[in-house]
Amino acid sequence: MKLSEIAQYVGGQLDGADREISGGVAELRSATPAQISFLANPKYQKLAEETNAAAVIVAKKRKNIKCAQIICPNPYLAFAKLLAKLHPPPKREKGVHSSAVLESRVELGENISVGGNVYLGKGCKIGENTVIMPNVFIGADTVIGNDCLIYPNVTIRERVVIGERVIIHSGAVIGSDGFGYAADGERYYKIPQIGSVLIEDEVEIGSNVSIDRATLGRTVISKGCKIDNLVQIAHNVEIGENTVLVAQMGIAGSSRIGKHCTIAGQVGIVGHITIGDNVVVAGQSGVTKDLAGNQIVLGSPAIPITQERRQIASRALLPETMKKLKIMEERLAKLESQASLKKKEDCD
Amino acid sequence: MKLSEIAQYVGGQLDGADREISGGVAELRSATPAQISFLANPKYQKLAEETNAAAVIVAKKRKNIKCAQIICPNPYLAFAKLLAKLHPPPKREKGVHSSAVLESRVELGENISVGGNVYLGKGCKIGENTVIMPNVFIGADTVIGNDCLIYPNVTIRERVVIGERVIIHSGAVIGSDGFGYAADGERYYKIPQIGSVLIEDEVEIGSNVSIDRATLGRTVISKGCKIDNLVQIAHNVEIGENTVLVAQMGIAGSSRIGKHCTIAGQVGIVGHITIGDNVVVAGQSGVTKDLAGNQIVLGSPAIPITQERRQIASRALLPETMKKLKIMEERLAKLESQASLKKKEDCD
Amino acid sequence: MKLSEIAQYVGGQLDGADREISGGVAELRSATPAQISFLANPKYQKLAEETNAAAVIVAKKRKNIKCAQIICPNPYLAFAKLLAKLHPPPKREKGVHSSAVLESRVELGENISVGGNVYLGKGCKIGENTVIMPNVFIGADTVIGNDCLIYPNVTIRERVVIGERVIIHSGAVIGSDGFGYAADGERYYKIPQIGSVLIEDEVEIGSNVSIDRATLGRTVISKGCKIDNLVQIAHNVEIGENTVLVAQMGIAGSSRIGKHCTIAGQVGIVGHITIGDNVVVAGQSGVTKDLAGNQIVLGSPAIPITQERRQIASRALLPETMKKLKIMEERLAKLESQASLKKKEDCD
Repeated sequence: MKLSEIAQYVGGQLDGADREISGGVAELRSATPAQISFLANPKYQKLAEETNAAAVIVAKKRKNIKCAQIICPNPYLAFAKLLAKLHPPPKREKGVHSSAVLESRVELGENISVGGNVYLGKGCKIGENTVIMPNVFIGADTVIGNDCLIYPNVTIRERVVIGERVIIHSGAVIGSDGFGYAADGERYYKIPQIGSVLIEDEVEIGSNVSIDRATLGRTVISKGCKIDNLVQIAHNVEIGENTVLVAQMGIAGSSRIGKHCTIAGQVGIVGHITIGDNVVVAGQSGVTKDLAGNQIVLGSPAIPITQERRQIASRALLPETMKKLKIMEERLAKLESQASLKKKEDCD
Repeated sequence: MKLSEIAQYVGGQLDGADREISGGVAELRSATPAQISFLANPKYQKLAEETNAAAVIVAKKRKNIKCAQIICPNPYLAFAKLLAKLHPPPKREKGVHSSAVLESRVELGENISVGGNVYLGKGCKIGENTVIMPNVFIGADTVIGNDCLIYPNVTIRERVVIGERVIIHSGAVIGSDGFGYAADGERYYKIPQIGSVLIEDEVEIGSNVSIDRATLGRTVISKGCKIDNLVQIAHNVEIGENTVLVAQMGIAGSSRIGKHCTIAGQVGIVGHITIGDNVVVAGQSGVTKDLAGNQIVLGSPAIPITQERRQIASRALLPETMKKLKIMEERLAKLESQASLKKKEDCD
Repeated sequence: MKLSEIAQYVGGQLDGADREISGGVAELRSATPAQISFLANPKYQKLAEETNAAAVIVAKKRKNIKCAQIICPNPYLAFAKLLAKLHPPPKREKGVHSSAVLESRVELGENISVGGNVYLGKGCKIGENTVIMPNVFIGADTVIGNDCLIYPNVTIRERVVIGERVIIHSGAVIGSDGFGYAADGERYYKIPQIGSVLIEDEVEIGSNVSIDRATLGRTVISKGCKIDNLVQIAHNVEIGENTVLVAQMGIAGSSRIGKHCTIAGQVGIVGHITIGDNVVVAGQSGVTKDLAGNQIVLGSPAIPITQERRQIASRALLPETMKKLKIMEERLAKLESQASLKKKEDCD
């Protein structure tokens, strides 16, 4: 593919000499003259100036760059498209590996790939072109749609429903029991978790994620959600479309998050609350009550980010302020004693 | 089962017309007239008013509810009992799947179920009626009691001892090496972790939980503990009976938690400390020193919750207070200059 | 082994009667007169006074201890050496288990051990003496060096490179896709993650750890790093030599940590920043910007620990200070009214 063709493919403009790209996409630091690279974060401008790449994809024309530039309005998206074009995913062997265990009434779509040591429970259905990699467990009556990719060592329990083009990474557990007990003041009695999980189309789920099944009804991950590694999603939670959950965040039972939210890393969200659409919760925050849509919050407990930042700034001044306050108190006491002396004099 | 029979079964009183329940238990929102539902959190009163369920289980008689009510002192416990009655767990196939790998000297109790691709190490013992689901690894000389349920893709390392009626969810790792190294100032030398783990009766362990084996001796999870997903328990930790550890909390080496505590989500507990009985640690707190029993703590570092809440309230006022303080300082300076002027006048 | 031989082996001095140790190493509490124990944390002095052990290893001679003492400058290191000597790891059966699945072009070193239900992808290479325990997945073209130990249910994806003497615990996932998407304002487009992961010699990786592959290039874990359970390492991260990452910490994309750092439990580190050498980040901290080397930080956002501690101390005084401030304001107002009255009198 030539640079001019690449520019056309990603909807950008070539600035510089045309040239064949035979080595695909590479990092600024390691790219060779047969490769193309990419500059999104201005922090890395210096690397772009020193790169050996044939060209870099940029948002605006950049100075001091020796190689060609492909300028396009959304360079990150162009980069994604180009990577997908030049580095297609590895081909999976079609069919069912001889070491896979298939229980009765399993239904397999066309062109599926089922790897070694996979276990497919009774009555589960796997859609067309879907790849189930080795050592995966799929429970009874679970339904997985077309064009999904399930990585090794994933566990999907019984009666889970998964849409199309879903990707689930290794170690993820979908449909484990919700954490529900009734207490009698002394010990705890398990509440059977008879509900299920619904994962809609185009969801991606990171490695070692835990998504619990509902007590009754369904835990729902809506279309287009992206979930990073080691995230905890409790029973009966509902996540709106195109919402992003970053690594190690957790959300407790029956809470709902709206559409197009970003919940950053290590955030905790308590149970039984509702978060509106387009909300950003900054890293390590703790959300303890309902949040209206269209806002950015920070802190534990989380409040609007400008308020929390003002508190952090004030807090930094506290030790100095405490000293100043002590001095003010002494000055105040001195004035008071002068005033009382004066009064006494006036009386005398 | 009729509503009157259900009322009797859970020890409650039927208020409303008797009726056959053929569809089991369901959520308020989705229940049909052949189903029974449940209202514990007053937040959901409105859903109860609009439900199509034949009846709802409640703690006290509620107004504006059209369907029958079953009133009982602990409705959540009634709900748990009813679910267990109407929705018994799926039957597991008895015996050992042909694809399971059994090393020498394995002892299997009666009525066990060992799934596909399971690995049972040398000399391990599995109790009666215990279910080991597919792709589980059990290490050498590990002992698992009667009536346990081990979900797929669980790893239980060598020489672990597990009691009766224990449930372990997928992806959990029991008995991995404790995180112990000796340092020489430059590099780290591994301390062999030759101890073990003891899991007592009726413990439940969530998905993707890590419980490390002791360096020497045993890491202990006492009877009736309930552990949520993605929890970290380090080497030589001891957790008292009926204590609840919520998702993503972590506890460092050699610390001890008493009986009947609740440690909320994302809490961190440092090593080598002791927490008494009946302690509640609120979400995202960091416990840095010993805690006496019978208290609720919050914050990082964690302190009694009323103190922390007072601090949070004061902190919210800080930016305003800083401004006020500046004005006070000006007023003070003004008074001082007046006083000094006055003095000067008096002297003159 | 006699106490005198042990003293010599660990480079220490025997204080007390010589004696045969036939039972190896044990905890202070449970040790028998045929065992040796160990006192590092002074907190456990009392247990040492009451132990039945034949001897304890200590840093300095301790009072009130009835048994023999072996005194050596680094008792923890001595303990590590002694444990390794007296409790060698279990022997693994050599060869490839009949239930393992080997794809084409797999290269196996001498003396390897490949357990049941293991999957070895096309073209992967396993070094000499390396042990791959049951139910492990190794992806295509991945290279694992000599003397490694891979515990059950580990997933190592394609094209990962692992050095020598590396230990990886159960449930860990190495080389899952980085969390990278391009947004068009509405939905997210996956950026193919075509890079890899490099794990250098003597690294140890805990259970249920997630280490993502790079988008382009490599995620790097340098020689001698020790990683605790449930840690999250994002794409393109680089960790310097002999750095310790404690349980449940997480680091976002493209950030770098220097050599010989200790990042404590539940710490979060944002993306695209650099942390110098010899930095300690205390538990639950949130690192939001570059950190120079050779310092200890605490807090979220993390600042030098002495500053944060002063802030915590000031914060504890806040509620009282707020009250005092109110009183000061009243006193100030009183003075002001007196002054204004006085002025009025003077004018009159």
